[in-house]
Amino acid sequence: MWDRLWINARLATMTEGAAYGAVEKGAIASADGRIAWVGPLAELPDRPAALAREVIDLEGRWITPGLIDCHTHLVYGGNRAREFELRLEGASYEEIARAGGGIRNTVKATREASEEELRAGALPRLKSLLAEGVTTLEIKSGYGLNLETELKQLRVARSLGKDLPVTVSTTFLGAHALPPEFEGDSDGYIDAVCAMMPEVASSGLADVVDAFCETIGFSYEQTKRVFQAARDNGLPVKLHADQLSDLEGAKLAAEFGALSADHLEYTSEAGAQAMAEAGTVAVLLPGAFYFLRETKQPPLEAFRNAGVPIALATDSNPGSSPATSLLLMLNMACTLFRMTPEEALLGVTRHGAQALGLRESRGTLEVGKVADLCIWDIESPAELAYRIGFNPLVTSVKDGRDVECCSS
Amino acid sequence: MWDRLWINARLATMTEGAAYGAVEKGAIASADGRIAWVGPLAELPDRPAALAREVIDLEGRWITPGLIDCHTHLVYGGNRAREFELRLEGASYEEIARAGGGIRNTVKATREASEEELRAGALPRLKSLLAEGVTTLEIKSGYGLNLETELKQLRVARSLGKDLPVTVSTTFLGAHALPPEFEGDSDGYIDAVCAMMPEVASSGLADVVDAFCETIGFSYEQTKRVFQAARDNGLPVKLHADQLSDLEGAKLAAEFGALSADHLEYTSEAGAQAMAEAGTVAVLLPGAFYFLRETKQPPLEAFRNAGVPIALATDSNPGSSPATSLLLMLNMACTLFRMTPEEALLGVTRHGAQALGLRESRGTLEVGKVADLCIWDIESPAELAYRIGFNPLVTSVKDGRDVECCSS
Ligand SMILES: [Zn+2]
Ligand SMILES: [Zn+2]
Repeated sequence: MWDRLWINARLATMTEGAAYGAVEKGAIASADGRIAWVGPLAELPDRPAALAREVIDLEGRWITPGLIDCHTHLVYGGNRAREFELRLEGASYEEIARAGGGIRNTVKATREASEEELRAGALPRLKSLLAEGVTTLEIKSGYGLNLETELKQLRVARSLGKDLPVTVSTTFLGAHALPPEFEGDSDGYIDAVCAMMPEVASSGLADVVDAFCETIGFSYEQTKRVFQAARDNGLPVKLHADQLSDLEGAKLAAEFGALSADHLEYTSEAGAQAMAEAGTVAVLLPGAFYFLRETKQPPLEAFRNAGVPIALATDSNPGSSPATSLLLMLNMACTLFRMTPEEALLGVTRHGAQALGLRESRGTLEVGKVADLCIWDIESPAELAYRIGFNPLVTSVKDGRDVECCSS
Repeated sequence: MWDRLWINARLATMTEGAAYGAVEKGAIASADGRIAWVGPLAELPDRPAALAREVIDLEGRWITPGLIDCHTHLVYGGNRAREFELRLEGASYEEIARAGGGIRNTVKATREASEEELRAGALPRLKSLLAEGVTTLEIKSGYGLNLETELKQLRVARSLGKDLPVTVSTTFLGAHALPPEFEGDSDGYIDAVCAMMPEVASSGLADVVDAFCETIGFSYEQTKRVFQAARDNGLPVKLHADQLSDLEGAKLAAEFGALSADHLEYTSEAGAQAMAEAGTVAVLLPGAFYFLRETKQPPLEAFRNAGVPIALATDSNPGSSPATSLLLMLNMACTLFRMTPEEALLGVTRHGAQALGLRESRGTLEVGKVADLCIWDIESPAELAYRIGFNPLVTSVKDGRDVECCSS
């Protein structure tokens, strides 16, 4: 007997085939936290009450897979609202730095914060995401820039996943920025990051390794060294690539079989082709594009033509995307990048799961996958991308159980 | 004795003087739904418990005036998500129209809907706004385009204000678009709108009259006729002006002493000057600017230099701004228009009140004004504009009472 059975649901299974993998008059069942059955209501093998301990009539409401935010920097110290304000008031770079602006100040605040403080700071942001149906998210380190603080960030990320109804995938982003103590010696800092790798790996606190390959970040060669160290320590990689210029980050990511390459505004067709061949997901981050008022569009057509799966994420971070609404990213992807609502929803379900290496267990409504669901009060899945600043979530379901903590 | 007294609050009074009219260690009291006292905690005339029946310790939380959304089209029939999707899928104009796209289909759906259906459709949108601290909003007609349906929309708008803890200002927008039955005869339709005016006025259902002065709307001369009819019937005016081209709508609005002119991307310096002299508020609508991917910026410097008060609103409507987050409009105003966070917050408090002719009773924390407040879990008021898709509202207060229905 199943645990729970939702009937009279419209299902956006997000599997291949029809638009949204839709089943208009469907049913879905969970048992032991997994999807035990999914399909047309008429094909249920018996009457509902005989099949499950609990039967829920959704009266035509839509169910999608639980949403996946595959790129966030959710755990950090401090607050950059004052920097935002000063910049708009026309303050100089020096005034902003003095008032606590810039990534270095986030690094300082993150180093000074206790785990409890980091956790308390991240919690409202995480709850904001969960209230919209996020059931899996990625959290990066990268504001510590020394082993101790990077591990502190990762421990906080892990603990959030233990205490809240959300699966957290953690990423070691030591090569995010140059810490002040390595000023003028970026190669030396990359040595230090590579030297951290064995302990990061053995701690079990990081699922993946990431780097920021950019003119204002680290070079192609430096990134390659970080990736090699990750590989030597058995960790998969992903990359902040080609956001502000084409350093061939997408190609490098593909060479290392990266799970994803992220941002990608300046990626070339050759880069997209390499990603397709490597199975690397393109993670687009419209929140940062919007907030930084970028104008260079990511090469959507090249990704489509090459068959690169496209994911979307909030990039939630204090400097370039202080965003905690994944649904808004769907709208921004459609409005700013001209993705379709179906592509956008794939980006936070099936393709988001793939970007985290979780394709086998999440991202679609299929038997055997984890029973992470969202139940929506909408007339069509396109509404999730169409509306701006509206949350039609009725409830999310994590491992088969209703999420109580965060829905509004 | 006062009814309620909030102590240890940081107040953004939004009065003139210091940034945000801030009082760092403040207190505010309500009696009979009005603000009875406001100022530094240290200046309270007695100990708190001796002054009010209820004392609330805010432990440093911020209080702002209740938010004001001064431009919405919240009441309408139907849903345009499919149109959004079709357009992104590359469908032709005809396919979109057939599938229910375009304002004419919203008009059709609004005409066909019962009052109860219109109300049920608007309710979740209104609750989304209220959950972020909106305590006053404007709702326009304009999807009826005949007397019967326009009055139906206005009745629904009024009823929402009666049944929910929000003050609704209603606007008759008969001159919004040309209804199909007047195809090719826009002057004839303007005659009809002018003929509706006496009944609209005597119904008491409309507080203000609005029109859409635009190449794709109505001409300067036609708008003038509508304004004259409004004036003849004792109704104040406002205008959708200069959104897509400069038809001198701002100047026309000023000539009629309009409460506000709205959109204004193409307004000239002379138009801004005329608005300043007339005391007409500039209502900027960044949601529509964003959703339509406009590039022409409203002349912010001209408004600043001329001393025109600038308000912000969602423009919540199904076609060009399906937005139901006023906080997000603060971020968009800063990000897209380069307004400062303080200007943005003024835009949804003091200046929003002025745009609705409610300056005497709302929009600032001052003795005698209505006790509409928002209590926020933030470190500085700039956070309200800085964050994207985050709601730090602890509770809003309407007429001195906590709002229970809609906060998350
Ligand atoms: Zn990032
Ligand atoms: Zn409008």
